[in-house]
Amino acid sequence: MLTQATSSRMSSQMNFTFSDISVEALRMELSSFASERDWHKFHTPRNLLLALVGEVGELSELFQWRSDAGAKPGLLDWQRSEKSELGDELADVFLYLIRLSDVCGIDLPRAAGEKLEKNRSKYPAERCHGSSAKYTAYE
Amino acid sequence: MLTQATSSRMSSQMNFTFSDISVEALRMELSSFASERDWHKFHTPRNLLLALVGEVGELSELFQWRSDAGAKPGLLDWQRSEKSELGDELADVFLYLIRLSDVCGIDLPRAAGEKLEKNRSKYPAERCHGSSAKYTAYE
Amino acid sequence: MLTQATSSRMSSQMNFTFSDISVEALRMELSSFASERDWHKFHTPRNLLLALVGEVGELSELFQWRSDAGAKPGLLDWQRSEKSELGDELADVFLYLIRLSDVCGIDLPRAAGEKLEKNRSKYPAERCHGSSAKYTAYE
Amino acid sequence: MLTQATSSRMSSQMNFTFSDISVEALRMELSSFASERDWHKFHTPRNLLLALVGEVGELSELFQWRSDAGAKPGLLDWQRSEKSELGDELADVFLYLIRLSDVCGIDLPRAAGEKLEKNRSKYPAERCHGSSAKYTAYE
Repeated sequence: MLTQATSSRMSSQMNFTFSDISVEALRMELSSFASERDWHKFHTPRNLLLALVGEVGELSELFQWRSDAGAKPGLLDWQRSEKSELGDELADVFLYLIRLSDVCGIDLPRAAGEKLEKNRSKYPAERCHGSSAKYTAYE
Repeated sequence: MLTQATSSRMSSQMNFTFSDISVEALRMELSSFASERDWHKFHTPRNLLLALVGEVGELSELFQWRSDAGAKPGLLDWQRSEKSELGDELADVFLYLIRLSDVCGIDLPRAAGEKLEKNRSKYPAERCHGSSAKYTAYE
Repeated sequence: MLTQATSSRMSSQMNFTFSDISVEALRMELSSFASERDWHKFHTPRNLLLALVGEVGELSELFQWRSDAGAKPGLLDWQRSEKSELGDELADVFLYLIRLSDVCGIDLPRAAGEKLEKNRSKYPAERCHGSSAKYTAYE
Repeated sequence: MLTQATSSRMSSQMNFTFSDISVEALRMELSSFASERDWHKFHTPRNLLLALVGEVGELSELFQWRSDAGAKPGLLDWQRSEKSELGDELADVFLYLIRLSDVCGIDLPRAAGEKLEKNRSKYPAERCHGSSAKYTAYE
């Protein structure tokens, strides 16, 4: 118990969990959102990709002048308004990522689950312990 | 029915849906993955953000020499191996986005749901129909 | 003459050239700019990199809803104010790139000249004619 | 002298300067490079922008697992091969930035000089001393 608490100390607050909102529900809502505004014609893969890059840029701006040194788990040292802005930017990246995957016909949550499995093979726990070397170093 | 099929023609294949894998399940798996490898120490917000930027770069490389002109809904003109690579890159962006949100203590799916609601107010369907102008143009 | 004019038609306006302002002059000005404001302490490599990512995001926003189809050489179809904004964003990326290179002790113009030479070897003109395949395809 | 040495300590090695290679020379070489390979048709603004994003991603990968804490001025703690790789990635971003500016008809060095002047007005030295606050805070 104590060990787990310690090992997850960078993993944000204790007992932190995500809300139970499915990616599929967000995908459907986004698709309706685009339909209602007649925006499907703008939602080509490359338009959505560039929009995603734009949001990643806004996300980066929130971190650009902050040193790692002072980073507290769960960003407890950030002001409430700063965390709210951060939530908005992470959300924007997520929404464009879902929309892009949808338009490309890629099952995003399944692709993520499968990629995680690949990563388990590429980075065997016993050989990667405490090292951030690239996987090619383990082959 | 026919209208809906037409209006969603850019929204990938008909009857396309995402698998029912929750973001919370992926968050937990990623956190365990990091714990098992003693990688929490590497997973500072800015490290994860730069890793995410790296994956967005790899995603962009898949689209950089492809013109929009030939884009088919659901990327039906892409080869199977190309779509598989695309799935991997979208997954990588997603996994780092989940991990970054977790480490920052941001409830990603909830933030996305709330952002979508904000967007509904910012872009009223009746006023934005068929226009990609920025929301400031509607205020 | 005619052939050259034709082949360079995507290369912006005819007779277009860059002004004769050296990268070294910009590097020195940027360094003084930081000194005068006591900003060197903020200009760590990763801070500058994230700032550059932010500017690339702003650059992407200018292109996200524009299809390639209508792109005119030299962006002659863009409004004057849009081109001015584009100039500002390209400049921002350039300024952070110079500053980042300086702080990292990398001779940016020389590195660029050398990389161009490498690219000449990697992509022999006679074998790459009209193809955008990755260089690994020629090896 | 001593003061200058101190104030430029984050600005890489002492007496560090960029080589005298003009941006215009690189622009012309890149344009010839594209002509010789019949690549102008691939060099649309959005293709080049996505290629630039890809290179920024590769640049980010070099910094993603490195903490700021240990950063030495001029990256003196990096291995020779790592610095060489960094030079290549900075060069790639630079080359695509030049090419993109050329294709868009933007005079990149002049735009940078003008942006620097704007920044001098936006961030008056006496008011911004030692603060990284956004310029809107000074207005």
